Amino acid sequence: MNILIINGPNLNLLGIREKNIYGNTDFDTYLDRLKTEFSNIDISYFQSNNEGELITAIQNYGFGKTDGIILNAGAYTHTSLAIADAISAISTPVIEVHISNIFKREQVRHHSFIAPVCIGSVSGFGLDSYRLAIEALKRLNAQE
Amino acid sequence: MNILIINGPNLNLLGIREKNIYGNTDFDTYLDRLKTEFSNIDISYFQSNNEGELITAIQNYGFGKTDGIILNAGAYTHTSLAIADAISAISTPVIEVHISNIFKREQVRHHSFIAPVCIGSVSGFGLDSYRLAIEALKRLNAQE
Amino acid sequence: MNILIINGPNLNLLGIREKNIYGNTDFDTYLDRLKTEFSNIDISYFQSNNEGELITAIQNYGFGKTDGIILNAGAYTHTSLAIADAISAISTPVIEVHISNIFKREQVRHHSFIAPVCIGSVSGFGLDSYRLAIEALKRLNAQE
Amino acid sequence: MNILIINGPNLNLLGIREKNIYGNTDFDTYLDRLKTEFSNIDISYFQSNNEGELITAIQNYGFGKTDGIILNAGAYTHTSLAIADAISAISTPVIEVHISNIFKREQVRHHSFIAPVCIGSVSGFGLDSYRLAIEALKRLNAQE
Amino acid sequence: MNILIINGPNLNLLGIREKNIYGNTDFDTYLDRLKTEFSNIDISYFQSNNEGELITAIQNYGFGKTDGIILNAGAYTHTSLAIADAISAISTPVIEVHISNIFKREQVRHHSFIAPVCIGSVSGFGLDSYRLAIEALKRLNAQE
Amino acid sequence: MNILIINGPNLNLLGIREKNIYGNTDFDTYLDRLKTEFSNIDISYFQSNNEGELITAIQNYGFGKTDGIILNAGAYTHTSLAIADAISAISTPVIEVHISNIFKREQVRHHSFIAPVCIGSVSGFGLDSYRLAIEALKRLNAQE
Amino acid sequence: MNILIINGPNLNLLGIREKNIYGNTDFDTYLDRLKTEFSNIDISYFQSNNEGELITAIQNYGFGKTDGIILNAGAYTHTSLAIADAISAISTPVIEVHISNIFKREQVRHHSFIAPVCIGSVSGFGLDSYRLAIEALKRLNAQE
Amino acid sequence: MNILIINGPNLNLLGIREKNIYGNTDFDTYLDRLKTEFSNIDISYFQSNNEGELITAIQNYGFGKTDGIILNAGAYTHTSLAIADAISAISTPVIEVHISNIFKREQVRHHSFIAPVCIGSVSGFGLDSYRLAIEALKRLNAQE
Amino acid sequence: MNILIINGPNLNLLGIREKNIYGNTDFDTYLDRLKTEFSNIDISYFQSNNEGELITAIQNYGFGKTDGIILNAGAYTHTSLAIADAISAISTPVIEVHISNIFKREQVRHHSFIAPVCIGSVSGFGLDSYRLAIEALKRLNAQE
Amino acid sequence: MNILIINGPNLNLLGIREKNIYGNTDFDTYLDRLKTEFSNIDISYFQSNNEGELITAIQNYGFGKTDGIILNAGAYTHTSLAIADAISAISTPVIEVHISNIFKREQVRHHSFIAPVCIGSVSGFGLDSYRLAIEALKRLNAQE
Amino acid sequence: MNILIINGPNLNLLGIREKNIYGNTDFDTYLDRLKTEFSNIDISYFQSNNEGELITAIQNYGFGKTDGIILNAGAYTHTSLAIADAISAISTPVIEVHISNIFKREQVRHHSFIAPVCIGSVSGFGLDSYRLAIEALKRLNAQE
Amino acid sequence: MNILIINGPNLNLLGIREKNIYGNTDFDTYLDRLKTEFSNIDISYFQSNNEGELITAIQNYGFGKTDGIILNAGAYTHTSLAIADAISAISTPVIEVHISNIFKREQVRHHSFIAPVCIGSVSGFGLDSYRLAIEALKRLNAQE
Repeated sequence: MNILIINGPNLNLLGIREKNIYGNTDFDTYLDRLKTEFSNIDISYFQSNNEGELITAIQNYGFGKTDGIILNAGAYTHTSLAIADAISAISTPVIEVHISNIFKREQVRHHSFIAPVCIGSVSGFGLDSYRLAIEALKRLNAQE
Repeated sequence: MNILIINGPNLNLLGIREKNIYGNTDFDTYLDRLKTEFSNIDISYFQSNNEGELITAIQNYGFGKTDGIILNAGAYTHTSLAIADAISAISTPVIEVHISNIFKREQVRHHSFIAPVCIGSVSGFGLDSYRLAIEALKRLNAQE
Repeated sequence: MNILIINGPNLNLLGIREKNIYGNTDFDTYLDRLKTEFSNIDISYFQSNNEGELITAIQNYGFGKTDGIILNAGAYTHTSLAIADAISAISTPVIEVHISNIFKREQVRHHSFIAPVCIGSVSGFGLDSYRLAIEALKRLNAQE
Repeated sequence: MNILIINGPNLNLLGIREKNIYGNTDFDTYLDRLKTEFSNIDISYFQSNNEGELITAIQNYGFGKTDGIILNAGAYTHTSLAIADAISAISTPVIEVHISNIFKREQVRHHSFIAPVCIGSVSGFGLDSYRLAIEALKRLNAQE
Repeated sequence: MNILIINGPNLNLLGIREKNIYGNTDFDTYLDRLKTEFSNIDISYFQSNNEGELITAIQNYGFGKTDGIILNAGAYTHTSLAIADAISAISTPVIEVHISNIFKREQVRHHSFIAPVCIGSVSGFGLDSYRLAIEALKRLNAQE
Repeated sequence: MNILIINGPNLNLLGIREKNIYGNTDFDTYLDRLKTEFSNIDISYFQSNNEGELITAIQNYGFGKTDGIILNAGAYTHTSLAIADAISAISTPVIEVHISNIFKREQVRHHSFIAPVCIGSVSGFGLDSYRLAIEALKRLNAQE
Repeated sequence: MNILIINGPNLNLLGIREKNIYGNTDFDTYLDRLKTEFSNIDISYFQSNNEGELITAIQNYGFGKTDGIILNAGAYTHTSLAIADAISAISTPVIEVHISNIFKREQVRHHSFIAPVCIGSVSGFGLDSYRLAIEALKRLNAQE
Repeated sequence: MNILIINGPNLNLLGIREKNIYGNTDFDTYLDRLKTEFSNIDISYFQSNNEGELITAIQNYGFGKTDGIILNAGAYTHTSLAIADAISAISTPVIEVHISNIFKREQVRHHSFIAPVCIGSVSGFGLDSYRLAIEALKRLNAQE
Repeated sequence: MNILIINGPNLNLLGIREKNIYGNTDFDTYLDRLKTEFSNIDISYFQSNNEGELITAIQNYGFGKTDGIILNAGAYTHTSLAIADAISAISTPVIEVHISNIFKREQVRHHSFIAPVCIGSVSGFGLDSYRLAIEALKRLNAQE
Repeated sequence: MNILIINGPNLNLLGIREKNIYGNTDFDTYLDRLKTEFSNIDISYFQSNNEGELITAIQNYGFGKTDGIILNAGAYTHTSLAIADAISAISTPVIEVHISNIFKREQVRHHSFIAPVCIGSVSGFGLDSYRLAIEALKRLNAQE
Repeated sequence: MNILIINGPNLNLLGIREKNIYGNTDFDTYLDRLKTEFSNIDISYFQSNNEGELITAIQNYGFGKTDGIILNAGAYTHTSLAIADAISAISTPVIEVHISNIFKREQVRHHSFIAPVCIGSVSGFGLDSYRLAIEALKRLNAQE
Repeated sequence: MNILIINGPNLNLLGIREKNIYGNTDFDTYLDRLKTEFSNIDISYFQSNNEGELITAIQNYGFGKTDGIILNAGAYTHTSLAIADAISAISTPVIEVHISNIFKREQVRHHSFIAPVCIGSVSGFGLDSYRLAIEALKRLNAQE
């Protein structure tokens, strides 16, 4: 089983910036842990600060090259209809994840353009949100 | 480890009503499956159509009687500030779950009174949302 | 033919409170009149001030035990998504009635959570709204 | 007893257009049925696509020439304050009817300029809404 | 000097309807008084319940056939962008008048489509609003 | 007959500032013209940039010391509920005037706190708005 | 003199939960203090987490059984039109109290359904709000 | 091929009024040009200032009498749900056109009731918008 | 103990204006009653119609010259952020009072700029609101 | 004559994704057809998923290098003020096109940042929208 | 070169109140520093808590008596259209300054009535905002 | 001391486009002037039309590589939460600048995502806004 994790803007700073919100683990370290925990799943990773590159990545992987996409679109979650359109355009299941509980934060972060076009959302569990999304994709994959 | 699952209004009809939205498994059957899958966790269950009884249940279990609450407040998610207050009042971690992807549905269901006072939210994975919430609580519990 | 009339919060005070809005007949007296007028219909009656009990009543009667429900949800009309969900969940036709013309009253009473999930609405005819709803159910029943 | 039924814009197309919403009976056929069912009531009928003509009709009949008006103002329900003013100006009771359940349709159809100045509203019962309005007027007439 | 007074929907009922708001003088009687008071001005009068006819009247008189238009558009004041467009299209000065103080009434009557395209507005002086508008037009005319 | 004209903030700059909006006549010159035109009326004048002083002036003149107040509250028209309360508190009729057509200007100037508590409003006729208000007060006075 | 104090949802946790907002005295201890301070007043107490039971309590005491009701409806203050209707329906004076200053808290707590149907409101004085409400009822009672 | 062009209120003044917005060609002259350019298409024309007559025209032509309607509803574009309903009721394709770019103008002109029920919209090309709409209908016709 | 009562605009008219809302006692008479009832408290009084003078008064008394301020800011309650800033700037406790129940009045009076920066609010008890505020300050003072 | 067609995000998937909305022709095929149909026009093409690259393209072509730009900005239509600024900055005429009728889709797609800075808009004709835009540019070009 | 600094309500408390927001330097001390730093500029200073006095000051200095005004209108920034009107009325350049970053504070402070009528704004640099404004005025002055 | 100036979309066109708004100096020429004026400060410069590249630039310079960033995010000021997040993530002080007075322009430009996460804002002084921001950074730097 192949899974792609896509991280959006500023998530390359995980473990560096605002540790009170996002924790102090950088994503590479966490990714290694995930690969260890899910040793029979091929987990790829893509990060970009660029809305257009995120769209292109979703398009590139979205036609059968992966069994599921886990997307943390960062701030683009709340401003990008174009990323939502890319998700609508592909057939691969996409799961929205957030490290922080976005509903505890400013009003603008309570609306997600992406949520309505994803299978489901996992929000607020710190980095563990990604693991839960993998669990969800595994079960979805098993059901098909 | 003890976990309490609380289901709100109309969720007693799971497997009976609107199967296109909620699937055709009734919750008792699903609960048995969960208990089998998490055999070393003591899973309790409470359902009520009554806002006040849900508040009382949260209060009763919220002071050390359980290690975590998984709450699907149904339609009260979107109208009950009082349930949110009950969650704020207790120290037990609470996770919000939804069977359907509430962001795909009517506007009124996009706002949750409960999300900002929970640890996190899991939404849109069908009944599997409950399993993911248990996975989240297990990890939270292990970290403490 | 079986019909259930459900009255919501404060409607137990009909004939007692605010007679300028709701008239001075109590509901029991009116119910007797209805039973006389529709002698070949079995008319049941349920009243509760409790949102949860109203939901449970709709669920209990909503799977074949009655041919139609006439619902005056009182103030819950304007605040209860959970009652609306209960109506959506059952197959029995439900008709929304109001004694007063809710569109003549405060802004908050102009929106009904319940109207979009009912067959239709009858509002503003005093207690006669209930009789008109029975007339509507009779015709619906005859057509099936 | 004299009753006037007024139909607004596009209701001349009943039975022709959008049958999934409005049914497939044309209004003349239905009017004959009504006249048969209420043989002791003199039922007149007026239809216009023109807001001004509807106002003039309400004015002309509104000073004692009829015992009640049943008004389906069609789309003008949601845009015409001028028709509402005409209703306010007369003393004849007016009842608002709608064939479809307007609360199930687009947002703009949820607000009625006309509802607050009518006796009451009947909405969602197909053509039977007109019959129910006649029933309501009969009772009102009997009470005076 | 020529002046045209245009009255919109339901203003044909002046002196008949809602006397507490609009007074009990009918417009013909008042018009005679105006003609007497302003004997050296040629005052014409047009009334229609029909938005389109009001537009056509404004167009017909708006190219030099009159020295000023006094317009009480009634409820169309608040709903008709098309009448506003007609006023914009002509060069004749138009003055908006209202018998009642529209700012004391419902919210919907506080917004006027017509006010921004008129020279000025006179509101709230009963029928005397028309006289004041004539006074205004006289002065405007004298200044040119 | 006694009339008080009250001008609010910045109206002391008439004829000096923004002549394209307010014209190039200063108010003292205009006031002399008014006094000449209405030689049998005693016209007083008060101007202040200060909301509190305007309130006090309205109070001082509002209990029988004058037969009518003509108020151009300038920008306070749109922000001062306290001036509106002063008008409500007195029995003297108050007329709202504006030199410019406030409905042609920015959105914030379309709402008046003062309009609903005045007899009526005259807006958009340049300085002539004051004369029209005197005309209105004369007629009101004659009617009592 | 008889007074009933009604506390709504989660107020049974006073002194236990969120002490930074609500203080650390439980209500029973405070009630004893009140009874001591007002020894010549018969003070009853009712608490429920249930909207329906609060409505029923208001109804039961609202027809002469008590001289005044002091109501802290907790979160229902902001969501329950039905409790407001119950207050409207009775003749007993009701005073709204809040322990915290609700205007310092989230936006949703700034609107009260209950305030417009109560005699008055006392908010922000901690538990002392209840004593002030008793003082108010005493004076009201003395005046009748 | 038959095409009907319908123009709404004030469009009879094209070439006369507000030439800076609408240009200085009158529609008859332009229509002749269109007929010359599309000599093999039978182009009819209807204009009215009256909402009701526009509805009736759409109804009359909307059942097979024409292969396509080009509608410039003028200001009714932004206020008439009834015209939109007429378009929904017919099967003939309708194209919305505007001479000016409505999105450059006031806010109220940015919303169109008509756009969602038409095939498509052409806006901002001056009178050339009509020619483009004919081009569109020709292609649509060719595809069927 | 020293207490300052500050009254805002138009409250100098108490007992004179709008007696149906504010009662018929003038404030001086009432103040004497308060001084008699609280003979061991030194009660000062300040009234102004002027926002700036109210700010200056709050500043002058707000640094230890008084033990508490009771503020009825009248209409400035709803429009003055500057008075709220003055309250924030001082350390003396301030209590907001209103004679009428502001939540029963127009929408604009439901929002208070001042409430969130005061200790608490007392509203709706007529002049007795001031006495209750003194009671509150006495208790606050005793607790420190 | 030179024309540049610019397509925004996800439009590289035309003919692949969501065929029910966008049809099943890929853009290259369609472009060839356009080049054949307009053999005397030099048609260039640029597509990017990247907002910044679209801005740069508009800048690069916007100073005389092309006679007109046809822009389908996809989802950026509704979120990009920066693209609108680029259009404002150049002198080349830009025409907005949409394949689908954006007014039939979700609310967020009804607002266009781009429409007010373009010459005009063509929306809803499938790929034919591009051809119509070329027709419009040809006529514009001929007029200069 | 002459410059006038105007401070609005509560800014007389600088260095005294809320030091965490406004710092602990009083304005007189800071003014001396400014005068030292800009020894060749004549810096005047005016402070008032009174909206009307601020308007009058702007008027008095606004016709050539000073080369520039630096205005910190405090809370009146967000509520005073009348001050904005005074600025519009004069020809002297006015610069808006704020000590704190108003965009970090409550929503009501994000809107400025004054910003659109000033040359520019400087916000968030503590007292240094005034120095930057002087720098700006110097450059403006040098350019003329 | 090192300072980085970052310019967002379309600011590469300074001196070329819309000179009435942005002046006719290109940024390179201006940058040379700045470097001359602040010869002891090392001023770097970065411009991009691309939101993602702007984020990356802020990240790259934001961890000690520069003593301050001056950011004119152009239209992204009003649409980019992701740039705001990048600013929040770094410790380097960032100052928001605008050439034009954004509060004089369209409504959408009145809200800034970036302002609340910057030290302060300078807006409306033409290119001089950049110099003022350098002045601010110098003083900030001197204070540390």
